[in-house]
Amino acid sequence: MPKTMQAIVKPRAGAGLELREVPVPTIGAREALVKTRAMSICGTDLHILHWDPWAANRLKPPLIVGHEFCGDVVEIGRDVTQIKIGDFVSAESHIIDNTCDLCRTGNGHICRNTKIIGVDRDGCYAEYVAMPAENLWLNPPDMRAEIAALMENFGNAVHTGMATPVVARKVLVTGCGPVGLMTILVARAAGARSIYATDISDYRLNLARQLGATLTINVTREKAIEKIFAATDGEGVDVLLEMSGAPSAIRDGFALLKKGGAAALLGLPGKAFEFDLGDLVILRGITVYGIAGRKLWDTWYEARGLIRSGAVDLSPIITHKFKMADFEKAFATMESGESGKVVMIP
Amino acid sequence: MPKTMQAIVKPRAGAGLELREVPVPTIGAREALVKTRAMSICGTDLHILHWDPWAANRLKPPLIVGHEFCGDVVEIGRDVTQIKIGDFVSAESHIIDNTCDLCRTGNGHICRNTKIIGVDRDGCYAEYVAMPAENLWLNPPDMRAEIAALMENFGNAVHTGMATPVVARKVLVTGCGPVGLMTILVARAAGARSIYATDISDYRLNLARQLGATLTINVTREKAIEKIFAATDGEGVDVLLEMSGAPSAIRDGFALLKKGGAAALLGLPGKAFEFDLGDLVILRGITVYGIAGRKLWDTWYEARGLIRSGAVDLSPIITHKFKMADFEKAFATMESGESGKVVMIP
Amino acid sequence: MPKTMQAIVKPRAGAGLELREVPVPTIGAREALVKTRAMSICGTDLHILHWDPWAANRLKPPLIVGHEFCGDVVEIGRDVTQIKIGDFVSAESHIIDNTCDLCRTGNGHICRNTKIIGVDRDGCYAEYVAMPAENLWLNPPDMRAEIAALMENFGNAVHTGMATPVVARKVLVTGCGPVGLMTILVARAAGARSIYATDISDYRLNLARQLGATLTINVTREKAIEKIFAATDGEGVDVLLEMSGAPSAIRDGFALLKKGGAAALLGLPGKAFEFDLGDLVILRGITVYGIAGRKLWDTWYEARGLIRSGAVDLSPIITHKFKMADFEKAFATMESGESGKVVMIP
Amino acid sequence: MPKTMQAIVKPRAGAGLELREVPVPTIGAREALVKTRAMSICGTDLHILHWDPWAANRLKPPLIVGHEFCGDVVEIGRDVTQIKIGDFVSAESHIIDNTCDLCRTGNGHICRNTKIIGVDRDGCYAEYVAMPAENLWLNPPDMRAEIAALMENFGNAVHTGMATPVVARKVLVTGCGPVGLMTILVARAAGARSIYATDISDYRLNLARQLGATLTINVTREKAIEKIFAATDGEGVDVLLEMSGAPSAIRDGFALLKKGGAAALLGLPGKAFEFDLGDLVILRGITVYGIAGRKLWDTWYEARGLIRSGAVDLSPIITHKFKMADFEKAFATMESGESGKVVMIP
Repeated sequence: MPKTMQAIVKPRAGAGLELREVPVPTIGAREALVKTRAMSICGTDLHILHWDPWAANRLKPPLIVGHEFCGDVVEIGRDVTQIKIGDFVSAESHIIDNTCDLCRTGNGHICRNTKIIGVDRDGCYAEYVAMPAENLWLNPPDMRAEIAALMENFGNAVHTGMATPVVARKVLVTGCGPVGLMTILVARAAGARSIYATDISDYRLNLARQLGATLTINVTREKAIEKIFAATDGEGVDVLLEMSGAPSAIRDGFALLKKGGAAALLGLPGKAFEFDLGDLVILRGITVYGIAGRKLWDTWYEARGLIRSGAVDLSPIITHKFKMADFEKAFATMESGESGKVVMIP
Repeated sequence: MPKTMQAIVKPRAGAGLELREVPVPTIGAREALVKTRAMSICGTDLHILHWDPWAANRLKPPLIVGHEFCGDVVEIGRDVTQIKIGDFVSAESHIIDNTCDLCRTGNGHICRNTKIIGVDRDGCYAEYVAMPAENLWLNPPDMRAEIAALMENFGNAVHTGMATPVVARKVLVTGCGPVGLMTILVARAAGARSIYATDISDYRLNLARQLGATLTINVTREKAIEKIFAATDGEGVDVLLEMSGAPSAIRDGFALLKKGGAAALLGLPGKAFEFDLGDLVILRGITVYGIAGRKLWDTWYEARGLIRSGAVDLSPIITHKFKMADFEKAFATMESGESGKVVMIP
Repeated sequence: MPKTMQAIVKPRAGAGLELREVPVPTIGAREALVKTRAMSICGTDLHILHWDPWAANRLKPPLIVGHEFCGDVVEIGRDVTQIKIGDFVSAESHIIDNTCDLCRTGNGHICRNTKIIGVDRDGCYAEYVAMPAENLWLNPPDMRAEIAALMENFGNAVHTGMATPVVARKVLVTGCGPVGLMTILVARAAGARSIYATDISDYRLNLARQLGATLTINVTREKAIEKIFAATDGEGVDVLLEMSGAPSAIRDGFALLKKGGAAALLGLPGKAFEFDLGDLVILRGITVYGIAGRKLWDTWYEARGLIRSGAVDLSPIITHKFKMADFEKAFATMESGESGKVVMIP
Repeated sequence: MPKTMQAIVKPRAGAGLELREVPVPTIGAREALVKTRAMSICGTDLHILHWDPWAANRLKPPLIVGHEFCGDVVEIGRDVTQIKIGDFVSAESHIIDNTCDLCRTGNGHICRNTKIIGVDRDGCYAEYVAMPAENLWLNPPDMRAEIAALMENFGNAVHTGMATPVVARKVLVTGCGPVGLMTILVARAAGARSIYATDISDYRLNLARQLGATLTINVTREKAIEKIFAATDGEGVDVLLEMSGAPSAIRDGFALLKKGGAAALLGLPGKAFEFDLGDLVILRGITVYGIAGRKLWDTWYEARGLIRSGAVDLSPIITHKFKMADFEKAFATMESGESGKVVMIP
């Protein structure tokens, strides 16, 4: 085992990231050391790169960033029994306390004391990463590394797409970034009757159509409300899966929901905005699900089921691959809007 | 049968109501004529009195107003089989089409073509009212008329209080108007561990305590967030039942919800307001139920069960009774904030 | 309009059916007259043919039999508004009272006073059939008649397959008669991870594989328990969809369910049998759904969604077609076990 | 700390138990040592006393028996953080692996590798017991020891009573042993409209009435089906809570359920019996919940909520108290049918 490794680091408060030589982490009794095979970039990583108010308020540099990855277990702590050296694993990025009231009642995904790798402790943009063994998810040995790296983020899509039944129903996905695109795959695999998708990027809307969206709308040029009411004979949709966080998309999405419909919201607006709870939710008998993280571990089992049956193929989502050393190009590509998911190789 | 009757009428566009002599209504083949015994006043009736924008936009005067009542069936149409002359009935005020997709899938309470008595057709503030037979609900002959008149409005409280389990849970009721007070009774009957209640009227908060609220907070003088976090060891509540429609109460209510908690919203804010969907709903994994009307007829059966078992006694909610001829006093009392439910007798 | 028509009739108590010339039915104010285009044969019709104890106990001959069909509306009663002459319709065979407590609480499919066409009143194996207008379901004009005739029976499969989520889950379908085969289509469309299917007919198991079953087992030659535990690494399945009514299949199905799993039961065992509720249901925390008929009208909307999106194609289910005059051949084919669904043309 | 302690022991295969002096247990890194204050007797303990086939097949003597207790933490292992010395605790008797698929998806109560204290490892009928720290439940210091000892068994009643909503519904509890009696308390607290209860012991039926049963039936003298249909105007009940395991009670219970109703089954029949799944479950659209153990830890939170709010008072359930040295009298009392819950004091 080497003593040092390459890692992408937030060196100090402020914008920017650096590739650095840092010590290989040591592990605790219930942890494992994972040699990374592939890592993917999330919107959160862009917030960290730019040091936005959320990042400035939460991160304590220096810190290795990144939280989506897969790799091989190369060392395990004394008390680890559920995995072994040589296992090929993905990882849940939320480390929970297992003792709070939420963890004890099936709500570990919103644990009162969650720590996220790459945010609250060292992350995975590195050659090695230390993880609690219970956070590791065993993959089949022959799974492709790019796909395995996506499992954590795919879990967000699965958690959203499973919040309410979509089978035989009309579904609207607002926002076609990588998680939105994966949500389209989930909705299609789960038997949605039709999938309407909105975004501001033609590149992403093209991908959405290839992945199974029935109709896509670029809201910079077209009115989603008009087009989708027209496409549904004025009925609107049964289910809204909101992946953008944009207030206008949220408002349009609710306006397009049928009375009695359901909305699952994952996209984060970032701050308060004018919202008509009365007309959009109350008077129309809508049910709204706030979606955070992935259910531990229900969502992971569901994600596994969708992948292994072949119902979902994540390959088309991965549009770009870079060496970790070229991380600046990788981040720029992710930010361009002209990409699906961007993967890095250590 | 007399030819004419006394009725409270909105005579023309604009504020105000009048007591008038009008023709006794005639009935259709599937309707029944009900001689009223008691009627109660709802917040909606105050909007109609004052001719607010909602009322101005929806009502087509002249119109007999009022939608909460009970009475005796005195005549039935040719095709009526489910009730008979002499039955003592309450009534569902929403007349639905039974043929739209919502009616056909258990969502009649949000039918696409709902007509409400006293709003879209003649109402019940009168000696007689014509109703579709299917909208009538049979009461036991010995039920008190004031209680029977409240069944429709009590249904709003039952619908809200049953939207999510409250048994053994900590519940917050924001807004202690008559429906809020009835919701406290429902939550108590359904086994809530504790019931926190907020309002701006000491009169109503006193009533709330008498009806079983564990702790009440007058938000004009005290901070609900501080007091309720203190009372719950910083945990917050499991369930929010929002009955006020006030943006500040809605925001506080969500802020007091535990992660993973549920909110049922009945109070109408009237217009859009600044709301932080991200922090208050999404990141915390909250489920929100928009509540409209009463489920047809699940809510009525539940309401009946709660009343007949004695688990709920609505008597203390009825604080004032007037003759219909004194309707101006009745409305003023309702508007003062110094009342529970106000009942009128024809 | 002709005065008489051809119809398949149970002329008197006892086995057998006859093709007869009978009067064209007249309709009531809320009924419609439908000229049939296609009819399909159900297991129930075989019970009626053979006059088994259930049939002997329930039917009052003479009676036109049959309850699965589609056709064109040629006449409507005075009070009919929801459909019009020329509409191409399928039909819900259960005529409900709309007034009992079950109908009024979203359980019309188990109405206390259900009357079934072809069982409790004249059925559809005829050139014309009178139906309550509310029992008719509007089809697109270009839908194939054989498919439209299957909608009612397909509803049984949809009701069963939707009773509990199957997406990303391992599913066992016991019984591959026509409804079992349609249930395989539903499970596949709804995203099941794998579908295991059992039967005693190789013909039907072949069909099952063509329709998407992952693994089929002929229980006359192979042990379902061994094969399916082997195929699931000893875990068993998440969901049982029981379509056979055979006690041995029911017992094996429950034995193969994972702890915490769910079973939806549609197949009727016909009488009591030895069943180990303790080991098979209670100790293992299983949830069991008894499935009767189709939810009115939720199931029909779901069935429509699955068909129109192309997620389900019923064509391969229809293996034989006969003229109504050849009904004896049609019934014999249905009974042979060497068929999918058998359709008759008037 | 003493070196030895008194304990009730199954010394060898065969009927009978002995009070013995045995070593005080030592604890592991994640365990705690609890000095017992009170223990209660469960039906399972009677099976162990008599060495029935289940016990003979599962237990490996010598073994300290007993699994219901409360006490004070007197020592904690190196890695224990969630409790501390001096805490007054009850305990979940099921020790789970936390790593199987069931534990990882909110089904720890049916873990694939459950070990039960007093069955699979040393139990609590002793002065001291070693427990995994995560199995301990913190009680308020002033809670009465007899009540605290009952929390685990009360959890069975809560799990059953919460399986399906009972608020405003008619409930039948079949079996009024201690868990049945506690289930009556749960149903009452949760707002049941009426509670019908059956048993074969007048002593227990008397207790049932005192605790809130609306109507009790001794099935050795009266027909439950006649009496309960009469009491419900022929409608039957909405919910069955089956606590007896007796085939006749199970059959009657299902026969009394309304179409569309729900049954939660906890009582274990012990072996297969003739059951008419078709008539009793399938054709009538019944939902059945198999109930095992207590949900970890949802049920414990609910149990706590019911006790602390005062909605449930377990005191009347505890009819007898003995010193542990008099365990033979305690067991005989429990077996007589003339008791509620029997508690022992070390």
